[in-house]
Amino acid sequence: MKKLAIWGAGGTGIQIIEIAQWQNEEEHIWDEIFFVDNWKPEDEEIYGARNLHFDTVKECYSPEQVEFVIALGEPRDKKLRFEEIRAAGYGFGKVIAPNARVSRSATLGEGFVALDGVLVEPLSVVGDCVMAGDYAAIGHGSVIGDYCHVGASSNIGGDNVFGDEVFLGLHCATKQGIKIGSYSVIGMGGIVLNDVPESVIMAGVPAKKIKDRDDEMRVF
Amino acid sequence: MKKLAIWGAGGTGIQIIEIAQWQNEEEHIWDEIFFVDNWKPEDEEIYGARNLHFDTVKECYSPEQVEFVIALGEPRDKKLRFEEIRAAGYGFGKVIAPNARVSRSATLGEGFVALDGVLVEPLSVVGDCVMAGDYAAIGHGSVIGDYCHVGASSNIGGDNVFGDEVFLGLHCATKQGIKIGSYSVIGMGGIVLNDVPESVIMAGVPAKKIKDRDDEMRVF
Amino acid sequence: MKKLAIWGAGGTGIQIIEIAQWQNEEEHIWDEIFFVDNWKPEDEEIYGARNLHFDTVKECYSPEQVEFVIALGEPRDKKLRFEEIRAAGYGFGKVIAPNARVSRSATLGEGFVALDGVLVEPLSVVGDCVMAGDYAAIGHGSVIGDYCHVGASSNIGGDNVFGDEVFLGLHCATKQGIKIGSYSVIGMGGIVLNDVPESVIMAGVPAKKIKDRDDEMRVF
Repeated sequence: MKKLAIWGAGGTGIQIIEIAQWQNEEEHIWDEIFFVDNWKPEDEEIYGARNLHFDTVKECYSPEQVEFVIALGEPRDKKLRFEEIRAAGYGFGKVIAPNARVSRSATLGEGFVALDGVLVEPLSVVGDCVMAGDYAAIGHGSVIGDYCHVGASSNIGGDNVFGDEVFLGLHCATKQGIKIGSYSVIGMGGIVLNDVPESVIMAGVPAKKIKDRDDEMRVF
Repeated sequence: MKKLAIWGAGGTGIQIIEIAQWQNEEEHIWDEIFFVDNWKPEDEEIYGARNLHFDTVKECYSPEQVEFVIALGEPRDKKLRFEEIRAAGYGFGKVIAPNARVSRSATLGEGFVALDGVLVEPLSVVGDCVMAGDYAAIGHGSVIGDYCHVGASSNIGGDNVFGDEVFLGLHCATKQGIKIGSYSVIGMGGIVLNDVPESVIMAGVPAKKIKDRDDEMRVF
Repeated sequence: MKKLAIWGAGGTGIQIIEIAQWQNEEEHIWDEIFFVDNWKPEDEEIYGARNLHFDTVKECYSPEQVEFVIALGEPRDKKLRFEEIRAAGYGFGKVIAPNARVSRSATLGEGFVALDGVLVEPLSVVGDCVMAGDYAAIGHGSVIGDYCHVGASSNIGGDNVFGDEVFLGLHCATKQGIKIGSYSVIGMGGIVLNDVPESVIMAGVPAKKIKDRDDEMRVF
């Protein structure tokens, strides 16, 4: 039995650990769930769990003993941490709320995180290190790239294609058949009716381009 | 024990068959679930189910043996198919996700389809051949006409009155007490604060009229 | 075993009694659930339950025998009734749908009402007499004042601070870290990206000030 390491002990990490504990009560897949947060001390508990620095994890546990999920919202940070963890030889688990529903025909990448009531519809293909917030839905036949974030209560229509590192804020929706290019961001409440190119920031109803997104620009 | 025939084997049909299979695991109401799609071949399985053409159904099964639901989004198409099926003497079933909740005082028409987490609130009256997408809610005391579509994550307020063939897109909401005339369409993300006449297309926050809807105009 | 009194037998009251009956089937906390509505007759049943006037309740039952929740949307009315009930010596219960999920680290005030699928996330602190509609979510670490209303499908981001008597309509969302002053109203579909002062009415995507709210102004 493995341990689950949640990278990031902020608000998102605490949401995820509570879901993971609930999942573990039902599925008994991990013998411990702890945080990995290099910016917080190792000697105090966070939300009832240990916090370890990544160097400590590498010293104490082999890749056979621990699997990770990443509790960060910023897609670029997720990618950097994902690559760092993988380079150290560790793999990734999945945290899926017991009240979420993943279609039997959906394909999930490594490190998938689904909070309460998430729906992954038939024939969708979800990349690595994707997180979906409360009541988010990923439409049938949609293909979602790596490191994407799907905000709570957001709804991806059927047959969408998302590149990597796409960020959908809270309460967004996309029409059937939409393509969103890598690194683009849809701001809270954005309703996407047309294809979105790479590296732009969109917002509104319907969503319009606010500005380009350069490499240094952060979602938060 | 009857068979369930799902008219339409596209993306919506596949969503519905998965829900129907889940419902059937819990309620054991059908001895087979299959598709009816005249535009797809009869000799190959779709999502693990048989596809039959409607003529074949009529040859092989009596109305006592099969009941239908319709997996089409376009209200006009739903009406045409509903009438064709009924004219052939067949009746309609209901597909209701086990995690949906229908009030004990709600009244549901024939052929109702409710995907994950749909709520039908107390004292509401829902017409024939209505479909409600994931996490859609039909408000208390609301009266919904025939062939309406309630998009995923949409929320109909209390005491609304909808005519027939109303289409609410993804992520819409209507205020308490709203009336929406037959054949009108509310585009994705539309927030309806005032009554809507017949045969218009509305969109936005708050929703405003975009154009009239003539008889030939299709939602998709 | 106490009785549960639901103050208000309108549409909201009927939604709440159905949830309370469901909760009671699972938790067996009340030996009767009835309405208290001074504007409706005492001699007829409403939704299968007795209706009593408040004077009758005070004559017939001691504070040890009855606890209340309030089924009103208007925050000011909730406050007045809450104070009236408390002044008469009675306390408040909680109505929480069995499919809602309250974090183990959240703190709930008296008289909390959560309809279907409500989420109260970790470390949030919710004041007295707050109601959350279907699929509403209260973000992690958020502090919600007394008599607030969180509309169905609304999503409060993490680490928000709401004053008292805040009204969030249907389908609203607030960004991480937002502060909303007391007595302010966010209209249906409002997306709140910046702090909101006291006593204003906001609407739109993003939400902008529509007008000030004076003391006499009602939400409904």
